[in-house]
Amino acid sequence: MKPCVVVQTDFGLGGGGVMHGTIKMVDPELQVFDANHQVEKFNVRMAARSLNHLVPYWPEGTIFISVVDPGVGTSRRASVAKLKNGSYVVSPDNGSFTTLLDNPGIEAIREIDETVNRLKGTEKVSIFHGRDLFAYCAARLASGIIDFEGVGKEYPVEEIIRYEEYGYEIEEGKATGISTDMMRTFGNLESSIPIEAFEQAGFKVGEEIGVSIYHNEDCVFFKKIAYQPSFGWVKEGEEVVYNSSDGVIGVGINLGDFIRKHNIGFGKEWTIVFEKEK
Amino acid sequence: MKPCVVVQTDFGLGGGGVMHGTIKMVDPELQVFDANHQVEKFNVRMAARSLNHLVPYWPEGTIFISVVDPGVGTSRRASVAKLKNGSYVVSPDNGSFTTLLDNPGIEAIREIDETVNRLKGTEKVSIFHGRDLFAYCAARLASGIIDFEGVGKEYPVEEIIRYEEYGYEIEEGKATGISTDMMRTFGNLESSIPIEAFEQAGFKVGEEIGVSIYHNEDCVFFKKIAYQPSFGWVKEGEEVVYNSSDGVIGVGINLGDFIRKHNIGFGKEWTIVFEKEK
Amino acid sequence: MKPCVVVQTDFGLGGGGVMHGTIKMVDPELQVFDANHQVEKFNVRMAARSLNHLVPYWPEGTIFISVVDPGVGTSRRASVAKLKNGSYVVSPDNGSFTTLLDNPGIEAIREIDETVNRLKGTEKVSIFHGRDLFAYCAARLASGIIDFEGVGKEYPVEEIIRYEEYGYEIEEGKATGISTDMMRTFGNLESSIPIEAFEQAGFKVGEEIGVSIYHNEDCVFFKKIAYQPSFGWVKEGEEVVYNSSDGVIGVGINLGDFIRKHNIGFGKEWTIVFEKEK
Repeated sequence: MKPCVVVQTDFGLGGGGVMHGTIKMVDPELQVFDANHQVEKFNVRMAARSLNHLVPYWPEGTIFISVVDPGVGTSRRASVAKLKNGSYVVSPDNGSFTTLLDNPGIEAIREIDETVNRLKGTEKVSIFHGRDLFAYCAARLASGIIDFEGVGKEYPVEEIIRYEEYGYEIEEGKATGISTDMMRTFGNLESSIPIEAFEQAGFKVGEEIGVSIYHNEDCVFFKKIAYQPSFGWVKEGEEVVYNSSDGVIGVGINLGDFIRKHNIGFGKEWTIVFEKEK
Repeated sequence: MKPCVVVQTDFGLGGGGVMHGTIKMVDPELQVFDANHQVEKFNVRMAARSLNHLVPYWPEGTIFISVVDPGVGTSRRASVAKLKNGSYVVSPDNGSFTTLLDNPGIEAIREIDETVNRLKGTEKVSIFHGRDLFAYCAARLASGIIDFEGVGKEYPVEEIIRYEEYGYEIEEGKATGISTDMMRTFGNLESSIPIEAFEQAGFKVGEEIGVSIYHNEDCVFFKKIAYQPSFGWVKEGEEVVYNSSDGVIGVGINLGDFIRKHNIGFGKEWTIVFEKEK
Repeated sequence: MKPCVVVQTDFGLGGGGVMHGTIKMVDPELQVFDANHQVEKFNVRMAARSLNHLVPYWPEGTIFISVVDPGVGTSRRASVAKLKNGSYVVSPDNGSFTTLLDNPGIEAIREIDETVNRLKGTEKVSIFHGRDLFAYCAARLASGIIDFEGVGKEYPVEEIIRYEEYGYEIEEGKATGISTDMMRTFGNLESSIPIEAFEQAGFKVGEEIGVSIYHNEDCVFFKKIAYQPSFGWVKEGEEVVYNSSDGVIGVGINLGDFIRKHNIGFGKEWTIVFEKEK
C-alpha cells in the first residue's frame, strides 16, 4: 500500500484543493489528507509545532507536506527531510523542520531539484510552490516514481534552519517556562514545560499550584490553581492545570476560555511560573 | 469493503488531523471523512442534531465518531451505540445520543473498555479522548480487530443520557414550536416542527401564513410570509417559510439572512407560531 | 479506476458531510474531495473562478460538483457539462459555467432529469439540491451507473447562462484591467490581466511600474511598485507586482495584506492601471 500524503498550510480554508488535484494527477491511487490549513499565516514556529503534533500519530512512512512559506520564490531551500521514524516531510527549510530535529530526529535532508521535480508549465509562477513544487514532488516520492535520492542533492542536517526554541527551568517545587501557544477553539494556554520535567520538579496531580504569568517584567496573572487530569475535575468557570495532549503542561478553564478571559499572549515575552509554596 | 469512518467534533478547523492519523495507524485501509468540525463548542444538543442529519445519508454500517465532550476525562461514559440501521456511533454518553434514540433507534450500547481500546502511551493525558479513545476504538471496530462485543461491557439503552427535547403542538390552522437552530452560513431559522405535522395542521405550499416569534413572553417578530418550495420563489429580500432538508419547517430570506436581520436566537426561550387566520 | 469527485460549495464549514455520504451510498468505491466550501455565499462569479483554478489541476475525467445556487428550487436548470478536457462539471446553470466555456471549453451540456437522477425520498425538500440532485447525479455518473446521455436531455451550449466577463486593454507600456478578486488569507489583489497580455505590453520582471487603482472615477491608490517573481524579492511591508498562480497579474505586500491595508475592493467599479512612464 502506498503511503498517506498529509498536508498542512497557512492557506486558510479552500486552499488545498489544487494541491490535492496535483497529487492525484501524478498518481490517482494516492490518498491525500488535509490535516490543518489554519496555521497562522507566515508563522513558521506554529508550522513546526503542528508537525510535532502530527508526525507521531500517522503511520511510519507517511509523507507530510508543510507549506508555511513567507519566502516563497526566494533563495530559501525547498527540501525533503527523511525522519528517523521512516516518515518524510516536504517543506521550505525556513525553521519548519526545527522540532523534528529533536523528535523523532532527521536522518537526512535533500534540496528539491526544480529541473526534475517541478510541475511542468508553471515556470512563470513563483508564488505557489505548494502546488508546483511541494505537492508535485511529494506525490512523486509517495508513488515511487522517485526515491529519496531522486529528490535532489543532499546537504548536511547541520545546515537546517532552526529557530530559537523556548526553554524551561525546573527546580524542586518550581517550574518556569514560556507561554508558547494555545488550542485555538478552546483557549487553553500551552507552556513550554514537558510533563516529565514538571513531575521531576515534584508536582503531583491533585495539588494546588501557584501560577504566575508575566508579560516581560509585569505579573499579569496570579492564582492558586488545581492540577487535575482534565477540565471537568474543577467546577464550571474555574481554572485548571492539566497535561496537554502534546506532552506539555497547560492551563485552561472548565467550559471557558482562559487565554481570552485573562488576555494572555504567546512567545518569549510571556513567562509562566508554577510554584508549590506560594 | 470496510465501513467508512465519519468524524464530527467541536474542535474547529485543523482539529481532526491526528484523529485521522490514529485511525490510519490502526488500519491504513480505512477511509476517514471529516463531516463537521464546527459543532459549537460544548454544545451537545447541536452534536445530536448534526448526527441526526448525517446518519441517514451515509451507508449502513458506517462508523460515526462524535466528539463534543465537555466532561472529557471525568466519569461520564465513553460509549459505542449500535443503531437500528446497522451503523455505529462512538461518542461520550452525554446527551449526544439523544436524537438517535428515536431515529433510527439504538439497538444496544457498550462502554469502551479503556484497558483494551485506548491508544497505548497516552495514559498520562486525559484531555484528548477524541484521539486516544474514540478514534482508536472506532478504528479497531471499523477494521474488524474487535467486534461490537469487544468494545466493552453492555449497559441498558434506558440508561443513555437524554437531554430534554423541544416539542411542538399542532391544531387545525396552527403550529407552535421552538426555534431550534439555524443553517449558519445562510442564517435560516429551523423550527422543531416536522413537515408532516405542519401539513396535518392544514398548511399548504403557496399559502400566506402568519408567523410570530416570541422571546419568552415578548413577541419580537410578526409577519405574513409565503410558504414556498424554496427561497427563489419570493423576491430578493423577502421572507419565506420552507421545508428544510432536515425534515422540519424553516424560515429564511431569499438572498438574505433572516436570523441576523431580525436578531432571532435559539433554544427554549424562543417560540415560533404559525397561524392561518392572522 | 473510477474518477475522483471534487466538491465546491458556498455552504461554509461542515456543509459537505451529507453530500459525501450521499455519494458513498451510491457507490462506496468513489473517492470524494472537498476542494472549497468557502465560495462567498450566492457569488456565482467566484464559483466560476474557483472552477477555473481547480479544473486544470485534477486528472482528466474528474467529476466536479459546484453548488453556489441562489436560485435553488426555482426554474433555473440543474445541469452537467462535459468539458473539452474530458472532465465533467455538475452545477446549476446560473453563470457558474462561464469561465469553462472559454477554457477548457464545453463540449456538450445536459439538464439533469429529476425523475431519474434525484435521491428518492427527498421530493418534499426543494432547498438542498446539493445533496438530493447534484451529489446524487454526480455519483451515478462517476460510478458508471449512468453515462453522460443518462443525465437527461441535451441542450445547446449557446444557451448556457454567462455573466458579463471583465475585460482588459493593453497598449505599449500600459495595461488596464479590473480588480477581480483576492487571495482571501493573504490579501493580494488579482487583476483581470493575463500574464501573456502584460508581457505583450512590454512589462519585464525587475522593472518599476506605476500602479493606479480607481474606484469609479476616483484614484484611490498610486505608487511605483517593483515587478518581481514573488513577495520575498522586496522588503517586508513593501508592495510587489507578481504573476499569480491563476495566470493573471497580481499586487501584494511582502508579509502583509495589500487589499485590507489600502481598502481596495473588487468588481467592475474597481479599475487597475499599470504604466511604464509614470
